Amino acid sequence: MPESVAVIGAGLVGCLAAVALAKRNYDVTLFDYRHDPRLASTSDRNLRSINLAISARGITALQFVDRAMSERVLREIIPMRGRMIHDTLGHQEPQNYGLFGECINSIDRAVLNNSLLDELEAYPNIKLQFGHKLARIAFGARHQTCEFTTTSAAGPQSDARARFDFDFVVGCDGAYSTTRSQMQRVIRMDYAQEYIDCCYIELYIPPAKDVNPAYGGKFSISPNHLHIWPRHNYMLIALANADGSFTSTFFGPWSLVESLDSTSKIEAFFVENFPDAVDLIGLDEAVYAFENHPKGALMCVECKPYHVAGKAIILGDAAHSMVPFYGQGMNCGFEDVRVLMQILDQNHGNRARAFDEYTAQRHKDLVSIIELAKNNYKEMSHKVTSKWFLLRKKLDTILGRTLKDRWLPLYTMVSFRADIPYHKAIEVEKRQKRILVYLQAVVILATSVGGYGVFKALRKALRRLQ
Amino acid sequence: MPESVAVIGAGLVGCLAAVALAKRNYDVTLFDYRHDPRLASTSDRNLRSINLAISARGITALQFVDRAMSERVLREIIPMRGRMIHDTLGHQEPQNYGLFGECINSIDRAVLNNSLLDELEAYPNIKLQFGHKLARIAFGARHQTCEFTTTSAAGPQSDARARFDFDFVVGCDGAYSTTRSQMQRVIRMDYAQEYIDCCYIELYIPPAKDVNPAYGGKFSISPNHLHIWPRHNYMLIALANADGSFTSTFFGPWSLVESLDSTSKIEAFFVENFPDAVDLIGLDEAVYAFENHPKGALMCVECKPYHVAGKAIILGDAAHSMVPFYGQGMNCGFEDVRVLMQILDQNHGNRARAFDEYTAQRHKDLVSIIELAKNNYKEMSHKVTSKWFLLRKKLDTILGRTLKDRWLPLYTMVSFRADIPYHKAIEVEKRQKRILVYLQAVVILATSVGGYGVFKALRKALRRLQ
Repeated sequence: MPESVAVIGAGLVGCLAAVALAKRNYDVTLFDYRHDPRLASTSDRNLRSINLAISARGITALQFVDRAMSERVLREIIPMRGRMIHDTLGHQEPQNYGLFGECINSIDRAVLNNSLLDELEAYPNIKLQFGHKLARIAFGARHQTCEFTTTSAAGPQSDARARFDFDFVVGCDGAYSTTRSQMQRVIRMDYAQEYIDCCYIELYIPPAKDVNPAYGGKFSISPNHLHIWPRHNYMLIALANADGSFTSTFFGPWSLVESLDSTSKIEAFFVENFPDAVDLIGLDEAVYAFENHPKGALMCVECKPYHVAGKAIILGDAAHSMVPFYGQGMNCGFEDVRVLMQILDQNHGNRARAFDEYTAQRHKDLVSIIELAKNNYKEMSHKVTSKWFLLRKKLDTILGRTLKDRWLPLYTMVSFRADIPYHKAIEVEKRQKRILVYLQAVVILATSVGGYGVFKALRKALRRLQ
Repeated sequence: MPESVAVIGAGLVGCLAAVALAKRNYDVTLFDYRHDPRLASTSDRNLRSINLAISARGITALQFVDRAMSERVLREIIPMRGRMIHDTLGHQEPQNYGLFGECINSIDRAVLNNSLLDELEAYPNIKLQFGHKLARIAFGARHQTCEFTTTSAAGPQSDARARFDFDFVVGCDGAYSTTRSQMQRVIRMDYAQEYIDCCYIELYIPPAKDVNPAYGGKFSISPNHLHIWPRHNYMLIALANADGSFTSTFFGPWSLVESLDSTSKIEAFFVENFPDAVDLIGLDEAVYAFENHPKGALMCVECKPYHVAGKAIILGDAAHSMVPFYGQGMNCGFEDVRVLMQILDQNHGNRARAFDEYTAQRHKDLVSIIELAKNNYKEMSHKVTSKWFLLRKKLDTILGRTLKDRWLPLYTMVSFRADIPYHKAIEVEKRQKRILVYLQAVVILATSVGGYGVFKALRKALRRLQ
C-alpha cells in the first residue's frame, strides 16, 4: 500500500508539492481552509497579493516536476526584460535585468494557482479537501493525526471537526503556518519573525482604452518591464497582466501611510509623486484604493529545522517568508519542492534521512535569499536612481558580458541561474564586490599614473578573476 | 468603579505583578493553569526548576512593591558571596562575586512562589483562579475577553470553558506564553526564539549525615557559594537550600547527553568528571537522576513590542526568556514589574501612554541581559579556569576597589546595582574593556621601556578613566 501524505495549503507551493508527491506514488490529500478559488467570483479577490514574477528557479522546478504541465500553466506569462524607472516628471528609463536579454515573467497569482489546481484533477491519487482548516497535529510513532475545523462552502465557520491519519505531513500553509506551530510543540525549533516597516496597498491600471500599437494594442505602458516609481523610502510598482491591465502596488512606511489621513492629502501625494501613474490609474481610483483596500504588512520568517523526524516538513512561506523585493518568494518555494524531491529520490524514499538532509542543505540558502530580499528594498526604492549604482551596474555588465561565466552579476545568479544555490550566489557576489572596489581604485590610480601603470594594474585585476 | 485586570500566570512575576496592581486599586484576578501548588505534595515537584539566585534587582523590586512583604518572603535566603570552583581532583577554589563582600542569594523557587501566594491572600481585591488555562483573548475597544479551559483539582483536563471580561491583561505566563501568541494575532510583533544546544538535568545533594561544624551543622559543602564543576563544554552547579540540601543541575550539549546511553557510561562519566560531587550526590542517585529526570531545553525569547495599546502587556519570561547563566531571569522579571509600575505612576494610570513608554524604554535593557546571559555560559563552564580570565578579573577587582564608582566590574553592575539599567552596564563594560586592553599593552611596553615610560603610560591610562 502506498504511504499517505497530507499536504496542508493548496496555494502555489502546496499544489506543486502535491503533484510531485503523487508522481512518486504517495497517496496525497491536499487541504485548504478556503473554498475552491476556481468557484469564487472575481469580486472575492483578496486584493492583497503582490503580482508574481516567475524566473529560472520557479520554471526549473515546474519543469522538474512535469515539463508538459509547466508549459500549460505558464502559457499566460508576460516576459519582463528589465525595470522601467519612472521619474516625477513621467520620464521613463529602462534598465535591463539580464546581460543577454534574459527575462523574468509576470503572472497573476490567481491564474497560476487555478491552473495548478486544474492540473491536480488528472491524478487519481490526489484528493482535494477545501474548507478544512488545520487545528492540530498529533505526532505519533506510526501515524500523524491531523485535526481540522471544517466549514461548508456556503455557511460561516462551523465548529465541526474532522480527523485523518497520515504517514507524514507537508506544510505549505504560508507565513502564519499552523503546521509549523504544531511542529514547534514537539521539536526545538529556532524561529524568528520580523516585521519590516513597510505597508503595501494594491492598485490597478486598467487596459488601454484606445488601441496602443506600441504595446500590442491593449497595454498603456510597456508590458515587458517591471515598472517602478522609486521615491527613496516609498515606491510604486506595476506588473502586466495578460488582459492588458497592470497590477500595481504601493510600498511605504506605516507612519507615512497613516499620515495620509484625508482624501485631499492622498490626492496631493499621488499627484506630486506619481503624476504619470495617476493618469494611468485614475486619481479617484487611486484614492479609493488607498483608502479602502486592505493594508498589508510585510513579515520575514526564518526557522530551523524544517522538519520533524520523517513525520513532517514545511516548505515555501511556512519555512521562509520573505519580503517581495527580489521576486523570489514563489520561486524559492517551488525550488524547495524540487530540492526535497531530489533528496527523497537520492534516498530511495527514506524520509527520515531525506528530511534531515533537506534541513542541513537548505538552511543556508533560505537564510541567504531572505537577506537578499530585505536588502533589495533599498535598491528598488532608492539606489536605482543613484549615479554610483548605475556606474557600478555598468561595470558589472561589462565584466559579465566579457567574462561570461567567470563574472556573474548577483541579479543574474539569483534570477536566471537555478543551478547556483542562493548561498553560493552571495559568496560569489562578495568576491566580485571586492574586485570592483579594487578596480575602482585602479581607475583612480590610472588617472594619475598613466598608461603602463593602468596596464599592469588591470592585468593584476584580471588575474584575480581567474 | 476600579478597573479590572487579568494577570495570567501565578508564577513569581505574576504574583508580584498582582500585588503591585492591587496596591494601585485595580481589581485583580490572577489565573494559573496549574492547581494551587501549596496543596501539592512534594513528590509533585516538576524537577525542572533551576534554583534561583535573587540579587539586587529582584530585591529592589520586591521592596519597591512592599518592603515588609519583601522581608517576609526572603526570610529563607542563603547568601552566596562567590563561586566555588571544583576541579577534577575535588579541590575547591573560591572566587568572590563582589568587591566588597556583596552577595547573591540562593532560594528554592517553590518556597518563594508559595510565600508570594500566601501574601496575596491579604488583598480583598485579588482573586485567585487556579485550573484556568488561557485559550484565547478577544481584544475589544472596551473589554478584553479572556477565554479559559478549566480543570477541576481532581480530574484530568476537561473541555469546560470559562469567559471573563477585563479592562486589560498582564501576561506573566512564561516562555511559551499564550498571552503573547494571542497578542501576535492583533499586532505586528517581532519575535525570535532560539534554542541553545544545552540540556539540563536536576540532581540533588542531601543534607549532611553527620554534623558538619564547618558549615553550621547541616551542609556538606559551603552553603555560601554557588558551586561549579566547570568542564569546558559542560558543567555541574549546586545551590544551597535552607534544609541543608543542595539543588544541583547538570548542563551539557544534547549530543553528549544522548551519547551517555547506558548506566555504565553515565557512571564512568560522573566518576571521571565529578568525583567529589559523586560523593555528595551518591553514584546511584546521580545515575538515576540522569536517566529518569526530565531533560530540560534552554530557549531564549526576544520580542517587541511588549504590549497592545493599553489593552495588554507581557512581563517576565513571556517577554524575555533567557538562559539561566547570569542568574537574572527572575530578577529581571521582578524589575519589569517595578519599571512598569513606576511608569504607570508617572503617567497617573494612563495605560496607553505607560505601555508605549514601557516598550520604548525597556527593550534595550531586555536585549542586553538576554545577550549577557548567553555569553555567561562560556564564563561559567570554561573561562573561570583560564589564567587570562583570572588575571583580568584580578585587574578588574583592583581597579574596582581603587576607583570605586568610577570602575564597576560587569558582574557588580548586573547583580548588585539595581540603579544601573542593563544596557548601561554593557556600555560601561565596553569602555572598561578597551581600557583593560590598553593597560595590558602598557604592561607589555613597560617591561621593555622601563620606569619613566611606565609612569607616563599609567598616568595617561588613569586620565582616560576620569
